[in-house]
Amino acid sequence: MSWFQTVVTLRPRPRGFHLVTDELVGQASYLRSVDSVDSVGGMGGVRIGLWHGFIQHTSASLSINENADPSVRTDLERWTRESIPDGARYFAHDAEGDDDMPAHVKASLFGAGVLIPIRDGHLQLGTWQGIYLGEHREHGGSRNVVVTVMGE
Amino acid sequence: MSWFQTVVTLRPRPRGFHLVTDELVGQASYLRSVDSVDSVGGMGGVRIGLWHGFIQHTSASLSINENADPSVRTDLERWTRESIPDGARYFAHDAEGDDDMPAHVKASLFGAGVLIPIRDGHLQLGTWQGIYLGEHREHGGSRNVVVTVMGE
Amino acid sequence: MSWFQTVVTLRPRPRGFHLVTDELVGQASYLRSVDSVDSVGGMGGVRIGLWHGFIQHTSASLSINENADPSVRTDLERWTRESIPDGARYFAHDAEGDDDMPAHVKASLFGAGVLIPIRDGHLQLGTWQGIYLGEHREHGGSRNVVVTVMGE
Repeated sequence: MSWFQTVVTLRPRPRGFHLVTDELVGQASYLRSVDSVDSVGGMGGVRIGLWHGFIQHTSASLSINENADPSVRTDLERWTRESIPDGARYFAHDAEGDDDMPAHVKASLFGAGVLIPIRDGHLQLGTWQGIYLGEHREHGGSRNVVVTVMGE
Repeated sequence: MSWFQTVVTLRPRPRGFHLVTDELVGQASYLRSVDSVDSVGGMGGVRIGLWHGFIQHTSASLSINENADPSVRTDLERWTRESIPDGARYFAHDAEGDDDMPAHVKASLFGAGVLIPIRDGHLQLGTWQGIYLGEHREHGGSRNVVVTVMGE
Repeated sequence: MSWFQTVVTLRPRPRGFHLVTDELVGQASYLRSVDSVDSVGGMGGVRIGLWHGFIQHTSASLSINENADPSVRTDLERWTRESIPDGARYFAHDAEGDDDMPAHVKASLFGAGVLIPIRDGHLQLGTWQGIYLGEHREHGGSRNVVVTVMGE
């Protein structure tokens, strides 16, 4: 059994949904760190396990969706703006602007974390799956994701 | 500590929500496979643990909801169709039809996975809880779920 | 590697969102129980790990959101009532009242569980993050949450 944990800082992005699989997993420097812990090498040493990403913010989200056509990301943002409208009459919490409270709603709806199975050192994402950062603020800045890997 | 992982293929189902607890857990052949790994027998050998199901698709979902009255499933689909409408004017991604982009929205909203505690070999679902497959396409076909069991 | 599991019963609360981090984590009596298992003391003995909370009900939810301004909780409830309206014409499942079926929709949307990383005995929540109970019934009563801690 081995455990590994690190924090990956995602660079600032504009409001909307962004494909961050490579940044969180594929090119992450922690894979090299795991090397030193696990002689088989990185996640490559994990025969069966789980990969967990947890975003430490309440106005951004992580979820799983399509990794191919960018229009899925723009359409997802369109539905989100339509259904959780900026400056809705029933929102009182607007100290940081019209995008403040809608961002909190989206954080709870889309969720703060994703948990993905590992097999023989590889994430078991489906062919068309990737990890989406939902950036729900106009100027959210950089975002911290705690990555935990466990397995045998 | 023991880990077990397999892929369960759910048979094709019509669009809507479906109770798949038995198919994923109760009658799953991997329980027999675990037998051979764990002398106490199946998940029965797990005193404390977690059961994870992860669907490898971006137009279907897994979530937890009521296992009794089928009208919960039909009403959940009604809300979903009302709130994420097929062919909405703001969707550009429609290469596969009017149900294409709404299915992606639902995948991120309802989520790709469920994580359920295990105690003394049994899933700790509440009395009224079951696992729902959300089939969000008209003709989604069979769906693969990676099942990971970990525990001691 | 150590595992710990218990059930925390949350006292009855009115319909809406409630911050329950302390009740689930901070003051939980199970930390003392873990003491007896783990000589380093409570979750303090977990160098790297995960904390999982799972609510055993289909008309309540757990999610992560802001731990400071209470207006985030009231506004989240406002959006939720607006978007999943009591007694909507398309709901057939109303045996227990107009809040019955909307509560089920919210259970699947907000989710039954949260998974939070642990580092050196402390939950790795962001500065502004807490755990929200979504009580989606007018008279939901007390709610059971299965807490599982795993780590090394």
